[in-house]
Amino acid sequence: MKSPSTAPPAVLLLSGGLDSTTVLAVAQHEGFAVHALSFRYGQRHATEIEAAKRIARNAGVTQHRVIAIDLTVFGGSALTAPTPVPKDRDLSSLSLQAKEIPVTYVPARNTIFLSYALAFAEVTRATDIFIGVNALDYSGYPDCRPEYIRAFEEMANLATRAGVEGGTRLAIRTPLISLTKAAIIRLGTSLGVDYSATTSCYDPAENGDACGRCDACQLRLKGFAEAGLEDPIEYATAPGRSRAAKATR
Amino acid sequence: MKSPSTAPPAVLLLSGGLDSTTVLAVAQHEGFAVHALSFRYGQRHATEIEAAKRIARNAGVTQHRVIAIDLTVFGGSALTAPTPVPKDRDLSSLSLQAKEIPVTYVPARNTIFLSYALAFAEVTRATDIFIGVNALDYSGYPDCRPEYIRAFEEMANLATRAGVEGGTRLAIRTPLISLTKAAIIRLGTSLGVDYSATTSCYDPAENGDACGRCDACQLRLKGFAEAGLEDPIEYATAPGRSRAAKATR
Repeated sequence: MKSPSTAPPAVLLLSGGLDSTTVLAVAQHEGFAVHALSFRYGQRHATEIEAAKRIARNAGVTQHRVIAIDLTVFGGSALTAPTPVPKDRDLSSLSLQAKEIPVTYVPARNTIFLSYALAFAEVTRATDIFIGVNALDYSGYPDCRPEYIRAFEEMANLATRAGVEGGTRLAIRTPLISLTKAAIIRLGTSLGVDYSATTSCYDPAENGDACGRCDACQLRLKGFAEAGLEDPIEYATAPGRSRAAKATR
Repeated sequence: MKSPSTAPPAVLLLSGGLDSTTVLAVAQHEGFAVHALSFRYGQRHATEIEAAKRIARNAGVTQHRVIAIDLTVFGGSALTAPTPVPKDRDLSSLSLQAKEIPVTYVPARNTIFLSYALAFAEVTRATDIFIGVNALDYSGYPDCRPEYIRAFEEMANLATRAGVEGGTRLAIRTPLISLTKAAIIRLGTSLGVDYSATTSCYDPAENGDACGRCDACQLRLKGFAEAGLEDPIEYATAPGRSRAAKATR
């Protein structure tokens, strides 16, 4: 790993979840000085931001900015509007093939996030933007597909000073895009990621415990099970994984 | 023009300036119900927002949303940071050919604006997004070029529900992109635009008068002169166009 002073800068979108935390480890392993960016976007789970701050601090990023953006004016999503988060859904229905977009989809969210990352990259002179999108597990979100990422990258290279003045092409880096959740967890574990600080739940309890029943919790639990590893976070209701059960292990 | 109830929705980026106000008239002339979007982005000239509100109200748009976005964290621009706005520059140097990007360039600004417009379009089910970019007069901003707009459109069509579920393609509409400022003013005038409510200045006086000397004022004054029309707004310092001079006409 290069020292901070000589390491090339990279921008990283850090949600505080399992995926982006793994990507952070990948970026640092590749020798980048990471400029992390998180968003408050009217989500009900502000615990994400606290997790992101903790993770950024522990990883020793170069800087971590939190930007407040208001998506609530657009409505239309369970993550920003008071619509119930779906629970206990059959995971096998959560595939791209089904072409079903979940109600937790936020209109153009990744496009807005990547646009801010693009501005941040221009200011920090980063030529790499890391984002933890995943085409397998991400339940049919249109803006998690490889063809979307490639199109954003193409646009980004025309949008900025570099596009006019020439120079190094900007790359949108998606190291997790074709990995299963289990493979992501194995990758992160091999890089020394401590997943106890991460949060994935769409609907955590008051004390921060994950619900264990939303799509995100189900995918995460399935991933740890398939990887043969133990999920170190607390769950409120997952079968056999209550706080009490964990305490007696 | 179609009635509001049957008119198809379109999203319009409305800055309160001459260009976007002209585009608003074009969109309404084409029969669209306009959902206007403006941004507070730490700019020093908040008079823009007031102008946009007035213009939207006068035009009878379907709705007008103002979104606060924080670009100041990125720094690097005369429009958001306390850097002097250039004055009295030679207009002939302000061309794309020079590949010189002005200090008033905001990193990835149009990409961020268009990303919000994309979210707004998805919620309002608009298939047209209007933006008043102009490749001739816009002084080398990379994100005002036709190739950039085409790339954004391509990306946008992969980013959203429509991209997965099929349906009408989304179009980024740039009716001014190849027009001179004079042609824009003639077009707007033919559509009945009242330019007295618009503001273009990068550095207006306390009372809202345009400075007459920044790039935007120079381009505007030159445009009106070439169109053979009188600019109805007040200028603080433009030669022969002071408030006193205007009052005695």
